[in-house]
Amino acid sequence: MGSIFAIDQQDSSCSARTGTLDLPHGKVSTPVFMPVGTNATVKALTREDLKEIGFDIVLSNTYHLYLRPGTEVISAANGLHNFMGWDRNILTDSGGFQVFSLAPFRKITEEGVKFRSHIDGSYHFLSPEKVVEVQALFGSDIQMQLDVCTPWGVERKEAVRALETTSLWMNRAKQAWETELAKGEYKGLFFPIVQGNFFKELREESAKRVIDADCPGIAIGGLSVGESEELFLEFLNYTAALLPKEKPRYVMGIGTPEYILGAIENGIDMFDCVFPTRTGRNGHVFTHKGCFALKKAENTLNFSPIDEECGCKVCRSYSRAYLRHLFKAQEILCSMLASYHNLYFLNDLVLKARRAIGENRFLEFKKEFLGRYEQSEEKI
Amino acid sequence: MGSIFAIDQQDSSCSARTGTLDLPHGKVSTPVFMPVGTNATVKALTREDLKEIGFDIVLSNTYHLYLRPGTEVISAANGLHNFMGWDRNILTDSGGFQVFSLAPFRKITEEGVKFRSHIDGSYHFLSPEKVVEVQALFGSDIQMQLDVCTPWGVERKEAVRALETTSLWMNRAKQAWETELAKGEYKGLFFPIVQGNFFKELREESAKRVIDADCPGIAIGGLSVGESEELFLEFLNYTAALLPKEKPRYVMGIGTPEYILGAIENGIDMFDCVFPTRTGRNGHVFTHKGCFALKKAENTLNFSPIDEECGCKVCRSYSRAYLRHLFKAQEILCSMLASYHNLYFLNDLVLKARRAIGENRFLEFKKEFLGRYEQSEEKI
Repeated sequence: MGSIFAIDQQDSSCSARTGTLDLPHGKVSTPVFMPVGTNATVKALTREDLKEIGFDIVLSNTYHLYLRPGTEVISAANGLHNFMGWDRNILTDSGGFQVFSLAPFRKITEEGVKFRSHIDGSYHFLSPEKVVEVQALFGSDIQMQLDVCTPWGVERKEAVRALETTSLWMNRAKQAWETELAKGEYKGLFFPIVQGNFFKELREESAKRVIDADCPGIAIGGLSVGESEELFLEFLNYTAALLPKEKPRYVMGIGTPEYILGAIENGIDMFDCVFPTRTGRNGHVFTHKGCFALKKAENTLNFSPIDEECGCKVCRSYSRAYLRHLFKAQEILCSMLASYHNLYFLNDLVLKARRAIGENRFLEFKKEFLGRYEQSEEKI
Repeated sequence: MGSIFAIDQQDSSCSARTGTLDLPHGKVSTPVFMPVGTNATVKALTREDLKEIGFDIVLSNTYHLYLRPGTEVISAANGLHNFMGWDRNILTDSGGFQVFSLAPFRKITEEGVKFRSHIDGSYHFLSPEKVVEVQALFGSDIQMQLDVCTPWGVERKEAVRALETTSLWMNRAKQAWETELAKGEYKGLFFPIVQGNFFKELREESAKRVIDADCPGIAIGGLSVGESEELFLEFLNYTAALLPKEKPRYVMGIGTPEYILGAIENGIDMFDCVFPTRTGRNGHVFTHKGCFALKKAENTLNFSPIDEECGCKVCRSYSRAYLRHLFKAQEILCSMLASYHNLYFLNDLVLKARRAIGENRFLEFKKEFLGRYEQSEEKI
């Protein structure tokens, strides 16, 4: 396995760094925010929009795609890239988190997880090996192991059990991934996941096992699962510090400017979240001075853009008054434009963070940015 | 008033003709299909999409925009073009049809129409003069008179009453329009509407009065209101033949290939309909071999485009299998792509019709096109 990750610059005042991931569908500069395309599309955006914003990698959900359209369709399409017409990189999650959060029934055994589809109630069984095969069939550039994610507040006993199962599954998944690679066609990378809930010694144990497995990258799971921002940052920091510097680190489910900047400060290279598109469809938009709701009466006669400082095509040519009108009239165009702007905003934030790291001033940049951003009169 | 319409070519085998409308926001080649942007946007399309397809004029609904966002907002935006960011032409209807089809209460007097909003139940009053003022405030390039539209099947007495009110309102509206023009800023055109339901002598009387008013163009209203296709074509043909050749003729609410070709054959120059976008959002798409529903099981593993013969960006790069998946997953992208394709298809049909007229073979073209189109296994 050649090196797939190079650190380009290391900020001297914190763990933030810039780097380059060398993936089957092209290079990706880090830190990178990956937009989520659950059903093989980022909601309300075309792939031309995604390229225009500058995304080199998107995330898609194995659980959803496994259930619908199913592996037969994606296999017949020669993989997910062809199916959705996206020639840049795709990271797929393992479906573990979705089985636990969406399926109306699930039963974990050592072998794998049995569950019912949230779409039609049908029964399915996924093992760590099967999940690797499915992601290889998709042609995922980065695939994740099947893991067991526990919410904030579970007892130590449950956290230990989840950790043990996750470890066991990691080793089996890694072997299955190597089998896929050995067939010669599939080139995607495999990332195991550190769990351990909010118990430091469990995080340490999980990290140790993951490091021992020596895979191309490492994900930190089980964060942003209901805990406070303080606890999130504490465990993010604690866990990230346990990981080898030379591997790319990915924190799953992070999508607000505050969390993204906190993750970058702690040396995280990759993150994803539905937040910017979901919140956009709900008519909430990011600005350098915080978020706001388009529907607010004060936007009725406001002909300025969402954010004067934003260079996106929405801010260059649509007014708050018009967007408010579209939102009130429930026009699809509102979801399209608000989602575009929010993704542009987050991508731009990450670009600025990279630049600041290059200038050895990430902490200063973060303070400046959040100082203005947290003026926001509303939290969403 | 200089001439705003020039006939370019007249097909010798029927009434079909090509022409050019010279409007305040640029020239428009006819016959022309105008997509409908009810709430100051064509649903699920950006203005870049509309320009890419090649539309030089869109329709917007006075009733909807008068109620929401209201004239105060559009006035503050310096008109509808600025508000929606569309620098080509806009035709606005008068709101008459919507008052009769959407408002939960309406009462017509000689003075105008009192009605309740379908949005919030508030009471409003629109007179023919007020409707002209509203459309002038919007900056509509072509504005329509307030009229009374009756459905198929009403008694002669009711059709006569609607005709009389429509005539009376036409004269008052025309005067109000001339007053707007005289102020020197507004340059839009005014089209009166021929009514008369399905009574030939009433159509004749209505046409006579409209012709006498000598306005820039003439609309034929009260068709496609529940009657059979045969009756529609009979009355379209009858009414169009009554109108002076040198004026542009507009039939409201026509949006299927069959009706569009029937209208062009009868010398109609302009038409509009929500059909292509509404039907697109419902997952139905046009092809040269008829319409079909994306959700059909037979599309599950079909990786060909919607229509092999279509040159639109959707057909160039998305498969039926992917679009079916998006439809089943209720992804907004499906509405975006299906609406785009359907509008492209209709615009392309009209371009081909213009070319056929130029070659004096419109009837032949129509027969060829419908011969294949009506193979369709399903009617939508």
